[in-house]
Amino acid sequence: MARNTQDLLSDRARLLGPNVATFYDDPLHIVRGEGVWLWDAAGRRYLDCYNNVPHVGHCNPRVVEAICRQAGTLNTHTRYLHDGILDYVERLTGTMAAASLNTAVLTCTGSEANDIALRMAEAVTGKRGIIATDATYHGNTSLVSQLSQSNVPQVGFGLEQYFRFVPAPDSLRHPDPDGRLFAASVADQISALEGEGPGFAALLVCPYFLNEGFPDHPDGWLKPTAEVVRKAGGLLICDEVQSGFGRTGTHFWAHEKMGVVPDVVTLGKPMANGHPVGGVVADRDIVAAFRNGYRYFNTFGGNPVSCAAAMAVLEEMDEAKLMENARLVGEYAKHRLRALREKHAVIGDVRGSGLIFGAELVLDRATHQPASALTDRVINEMRARGIILSKLGRHKNTLKIRPPMPFSAQNADLLFDTLDEVLGAVAASA
Amino acid sequence: MARNTQDLLSDRARLLGPNVATFYDDPLHIVRGEGVWLWDAAGRRYLDCYNNVPHVGHCNPRVVEAICRQAGTLNTHTRYLHDGILDYVERLTGTMAAASLNTAVLTCTGSEANDIALRMAEAVTGKRGIIATDATYHGNTSLVSQLSQSNVPQVGFGLEQYFRFVPAPDSLRHPDPDGRLFAASVADQISALEGEGPGFAALLVCPYFLNEGFPDHPDGWLKPTAEVVRKAGGLLICDEVQSGFGRTGTHFWAHEKMGVVPDVVTLGKPMANGHPVGGVVADRDIVAAFRNGYRYFNTFGGNPVSCAAAMAVLEEMDEAKLMENARLVGEYAKHRLRALREKHAVIGDVRGSGLIFGAELVLDRATHQPASALTDRVINEMRARGIILSKLGRHKNTLKIRPPMPFSAQNADLLFDTLDEVLGAVAASA
Repeated sequence: MARNTQDLLSDRARLLGPNVATFYDDPLHIVRGEGVWLWDAAGRRYLDCYNNVPHVGHCNPRVVEAICRQAGTLNTHTRYLHDGILDYVERLTGTMAAASLNTAVLTCTGSEANDIALRMAEAVTGKRGIIATDATYHGNTSLVSQLSQSNVPQVGFGLEQYFRFVPAPDSLRHPDPDGRLFAASVADQISALEGEGPGFAALLVCPYFLNEGFPDHPDGWLKPTAEVVRKAGGLLICDEVQSGFGRTGTHFWAHEKMGVVPDVVTLGKPMANGHPVGGVVADRDIVAAFRNGYRYFNTFGGNPVSCAAAMAVLEEMDEAKLMENARLVGEYAKHRLRALREKHAVIGDVRGSGLIFGAELVLDRATHQPASALTDRVINEMRARGIILSKLGRHKNTLKIRPPMPFSAQNADLLFDTLDEVLGAVAASA
Repeated sequence: MARNTQDLLSDRARLLGPNVATFYDDPLHIVRGEGVWLWDAAGRRYLDCYNNVPHVGHCNPRVVEAICRQAGTLNTHTRYLHDGILDYVERLTGTMAAASLNTAVLTCTGSEANDIALRMAEAVTGKRGIIATDATYHGNTSLVSQLSQSNVPQVGFGLEQYFRFVPAPDSLRHPDPDGRLFAASVADQISALEGEGPGFAALLVCPYFLNEGFPDHPDGWLKPTAEVVRKAGGLLICDEVQSGFGRTGTHFWAHEKMGVVPDVVTLGKPMANGHPVGGVVADRDIVAAFRNGYRYFNTFGGNPVSCAAAMAVLEEMDEAKLMENARLVGEYAKHRLRALREKHAVIGDVRGSGLIFGAELVLDRATHQPASALTDRVINEMRARGIILSKLGRHKNTLKIRPPMPFSAQNADLLFDTLDEVLGAVAASA
C-alpha cells in the first residue's frame, strides 16, 4: 500500500519498534533509483552523494540482469558444486596484489565477515584482545558491535572485556603525518592487553578511516602500525567494507594505498551493489585455522545469485572504468571544495581521495572548533534542495560525500553549486 | 567457466579453504532448478526431497519476478521510508495468532536473527544463561554457534560459559508423550544456571525439533516446558527457521502446533525462497529492550528487494494453497512410508508432519540400534538414482525428507518407489 509520510512513520514505530533511525529532520520516502539519482514518492529527483552500497549505480542494468538471470536459473548453496563462487573468488582475490590474500569465506553481510575475522584472530593467536579506534563502526553481531565505542552496547554477554580502543586519527587537530603516533597508541594498547588477561589478537581498522572522518594521510601511512602489530604477533584486519572496490580512486584496495598487507580483509556493502553479500579474504592457513575451529556453513553465503551479482559489480567496475572515474572526479571535487573554502570561512579542512571526500566544518579555523549543529543544518538544507549527503566523524561536523561510483564532474558541479548556496544562506542566517 | 567435478573440488579447496562440506560421496554439480527439480551439469534431472530454502519451489516465477521488478526499481536501506518493509511485516505478523508477536527486526540470515534473539533475552532478563538441546544447530555467529553442542567450536571468546544443554527429545528410545520429562530436564538446567553465575535468560528451541530428528510428539507437547520457562522468568525463543511457513502442514507456525506462545520467534532460510532474508518477531516491549540496548542497524536488512521477495513467498503460499498441499502430501507420504515399514525391517520408525517427514533406520526394531552406516549408503544410493535427500538426528540414521512445498503425491510416489528399490538392494547386499 502507499502510505503518506506520517503513516509511514507511525507504522514503522508500530511494526519495527523504537530507535529505527531515519535520515534528515524530514525523512525521505524514496521509491525509485537509477545511477546516481533517487526519486521520492512525489516524483522529486535527488542527486545521491551519499550511498556507497549501490556501488556501480542504483539499479545498474548489468547487476540487475545478472540477478534476474541467475535467480531464474538456480539458487542453491555451497554444499553442491557450482562454478559461480569459484569464478568470483578467483576474480576477487585477483584484484588483491598480495599473494597471501588468496582464499575467501563468503557471507551475507559485512557484520558476518567481521564476526569471522575476529574468530580467525582468536584461532590463529590463541588470544582474544581486539583493538579498534574510538570513533568507528564495524557491524552489528554480538561480538562485532563491541567494536563501536561511540555506541557502547548496554548488553552483550560480557564481550566488552576483550576490546580496547585507540584515539581515532585526526589529521586536522592532531597531525601525525608519518603514522608513528597512531602506531605508538596501538603499541600502548597491545601492552595493556598483554599485561592483562586476554592478550593481543588483532587490530581491526578501516585502512582509510572512513567513519573517523577520512583523515588526510599520505600513502603508506599504516606501515608503522602494521609493524607494531606484526611484532606483537597479532593479526592486522582491514575492514574494506567502505574503503575498497576502487572507492579511493588511486587503489582498488585502501590497504594497498596505506602500504600494508593485512592478514585478513573484510568486505560488505558495495560488494554486490545492495544484494546481501559480504566476505573475508585471507591466507589459506588463516582460513584453515578458522575452519578447523568452526565447521562454518552459511546457508545463503556464496549462493549462485549472490555470486552473479558480485561478479557483475567487478565486471562493471572494469568495463566502465569506474576506479579511474573516481580518481578524476575526486580530484575535480577536491578542487571545487578548495575553491569553496576560499569563500566560506566555515570550511576548515578539505579531505578525501576518489569518491570519498568532504569538508570539515568549523566555527573557527584557528582552534578548529567543530561546527556540529551547523553541519546538521547544512545536511538538512541540502536535502531540501535535492542533494543527499550526510555527516560523520567524532564531532559529526564532516560532510560525508560518498556517491555511487558513476558520479560525474557534472554531478559534482550540481553538488557544489548547491553547497555554495546553502553555506551562504546558513552563514547569512547565523 | 565450466569446470569438471575434479576441478571444481580442487578449486574449492584452493579458493575456499578446507572443511567446505559437500553432500554425498560423489558431490552434485547442480546448474539449474525449477519447482521440485534440479539438473546437474550433464543434464541429469533430480527430484529434490531435501531443500527447504526454495520453499515455494526452485526459481518460483512469482518470487523471481518480484526480485527482478524491485531490483530494477529501487534497492536501498531502512534509513529512508519505504512501504515494502511495512507491508511485509504487517502480513508476516498477521500470520501469527498471538497478539504479542507484533513487531519485527529484519536481518539477512537466520544466524543474525538468533544472535539478536539471544541479546533480547539478555536485555529483558539481565541474565545470560541460554539452554538448548544437545543435538541442534541454530547458526554461525560467534554467539549463536555456541548453541551447537554437536559441533563445539574450538574458539569463541569464552562464550561457552553461558550455554547449557538438555538431552534432545527422542520419541522412539525415550518416550515422553506429554513433554513433562523434557520440561523437567529444562528445569534442571535452569536450576544449575541460577545456582551459578549467568542466571537463566532463555530456552531456544526449534518447536518441531527438526535437527533432532523431528520426534513424534502430539500437538501441545511444549506446554509444560513453556510453563517452566515462564515461571523461571526466562524467555522462550522458538527458532522457526525450518519448522515455520506452513512446513508442518497443520499450522503455519510449529509453535502453534506445539501449543505455546514464544516470547521471540526467529526466521530464516525459506523466508524469501533463497534470497538472503531472516528476521525476529517479538512483542514490541522486547524489541524495545533490545533496541534501547543496541542502536541496531542492518544495512541490507529489510531492503526493498528482500521484502519484495519475502512478500512473494507469502503470496505464493496463499494462492497456491501450499500449506494445505503440505498437509495432504505429508499424510500420503506417511501412509506410503508405513507401508514400506511393513516390507523393510530396517525402517524402525516413521515420523513427521506435512512436508517434513522421514524414517529412522535401525538394525534391530526391539533395541532401536541406529543403522547409521546403512543410512549413509541409502542416501548415496538414492542420489545415484536421481533422488536428493539427507539424514539427520543424533545418530544420523533418520532420513530427512523436507522438499520444496509444491511437492506432489506423484513426486512422493517416485521418491518411495525408488526408496523401496534401494532398501531392497541395500538389504540384499548387506
